[in-house]
Amino acid sequence: MKQTLEVVLTPALLPLYMVKGKTIVVIDILRATTSMCVAFQTGVKKILPVSTPEECKIFKDFDFLCAAERNAVKVEGFDLGNSPFEFQNPLLKDCNIAFTTTNGTKAIKLSKEMQAAEIIIGSFLNLDAICSWLINQQHSVILLCAGWKDKVNLEDTLFAGAVVKNIKQHFKIDCDSAIMAEQLFIASENKLEETVRQSSHAKRFISLHHNEDDVKFCLQINTLTLVPKMVGEYLMIG
Amino acid sequence: MKQTLEVVLTPALLPLYMVKGKTIVVIDILRATTSMCVAFQTGVKKILPVSTPEECKIFKDFDFLCAAERNAVKVEGFDLGNSPFEFQNPLLKDCNIAFTTTNGTKAIKLSKEMQAAEIIIGSFLNLDAICSWLINQQHSVILLCAGWKDKVNLEDTLFAGAVVKNIKQHFKIDCDSAIMAEQLFIASENKLEETVRQSSHAKRFISLHHNEDDVKFCLQINTLTLVPKMVGEYLMIG
Repeated sequence: MKQTLEVVLTPALLPLYMVKGKTIVVIDILRATTSMCVAFQTGVKKILPVSTPEECKIFKDFDFLCAAERNAVKVEGFDLGNSPFEFQNPLLKDCNIAFTTTNGTKAIKLSKEMQAAEIIIGSFLNLDAICSWLINQQHSVILLCAGWKDKVNLEDTLFAGAVVKNIKQHFKIDCDSAIMAEQLFIASENKLEETVRQSSHAKRFISLHHNEDDVKFCLQINTLTLVPKMVGEYLMIG
Repeated sequence: MKQTLEVVLTPALLPLYMVKGKTIVVIDILRATTSMCVAFQTGVKKILPVSTPEECKIFKDFDFLCAAERNAVKVEGFDLGNSPFEFQNPLLKDCNIAFTTTNGTKAIKLSKEMQAAEIIIGSFLNLDAICSWLINQQHSVILLCAGWKDKVNLEDTLFAGAVVKNIKQHFKIDCDSAIMAEQLFIASENKLEETVRQSSHAKRFISLHHNEDDVKFCLQINTLTLVPKMVGEYLMIG
């Protein structure tokens, strides 16, 4: 009997699913889960996902750097925002980071509350690593798109579709969102950046005068081989 | 200033949107909104969407035929279920119908509670009629997929995508669900039936030994020119 593979297009829909005992891949392509993967590549030891900037700030007293983003911009007074470029800074090696973002950390915390057996962090940068890891574990899998303020978004759905395409023969799929995500990915596979630049989030970046390279950076495929995973309250790598 | 066009992939997400003053197209391709369109074509005068089979039954005393479907099957003791073929019966001419279904009537009632300015009923059968009607009215538009028990489904999303493709130049679109729905429809346009037969709902029909023709029937395009619309508590045609 194969394990199941489901896609949940926003955290607002997660309560409709049986989460307990399943593996959840949290997906926030622009930019939280991409930045987390980059942070571990840089040598960060632990990331503590927290709910609010206020809560995040407390951990400054406990030898954490504090990263906070709301509405796609860095919250004033924090060490870091949510751009993957910030997490490439070599000074972060061996540091711990307390991290709060608009969507990504919320999705992680909800997965934990709903008693997922395992929570791992997905991005295009570690796509193949995630897929291999999922094939080699025993639980049914939910790919959880962090979305934007509980609404569905394009880039997270596309990544979910990439995972479905790569691992579907190992799982039982009875989930229209998984079929839709895979079809969308296949339709956009050869023009991923062009497609994502149409998304509401990419446009939000441009209107905020962000460095547009964040979008390009977050769509790099298989530049990393690590799989960040929740261990107790922390994200770490194995 | 163009009006906006948004797609909401399940009623569970509708509370995230400003509904008041907008036109909502309710979409339940398999099969409620298709059957409603067919009923009006047959000559039904009014359809009263109600929440539960229990509530539906009361209207038998007030000269209504009562139609009730739950979990894709007709509820025992009712005059009608939810197959479009049932609503082609010429005996339904000039009748009123009280109608309750798992997803479609719920989406209609929620749209009304959230104070939509207009609520109309969409299906592939009246696709062009819906599109013309939307272009010729003044409100911003939400295409509301009824889904399956608050989960996203494939066939309703595909129909939303067909509408987006047809009318997008008349509206402002800043909605990833609309982009996704349109891309999905374009990718499946030439193999709509094959795509929908992969959906969880089409499979549910087969497992329930339904006449498979319901799927084929509900994917006919532009066989009807009517636009059912809520007027007070009732659906009617103009």
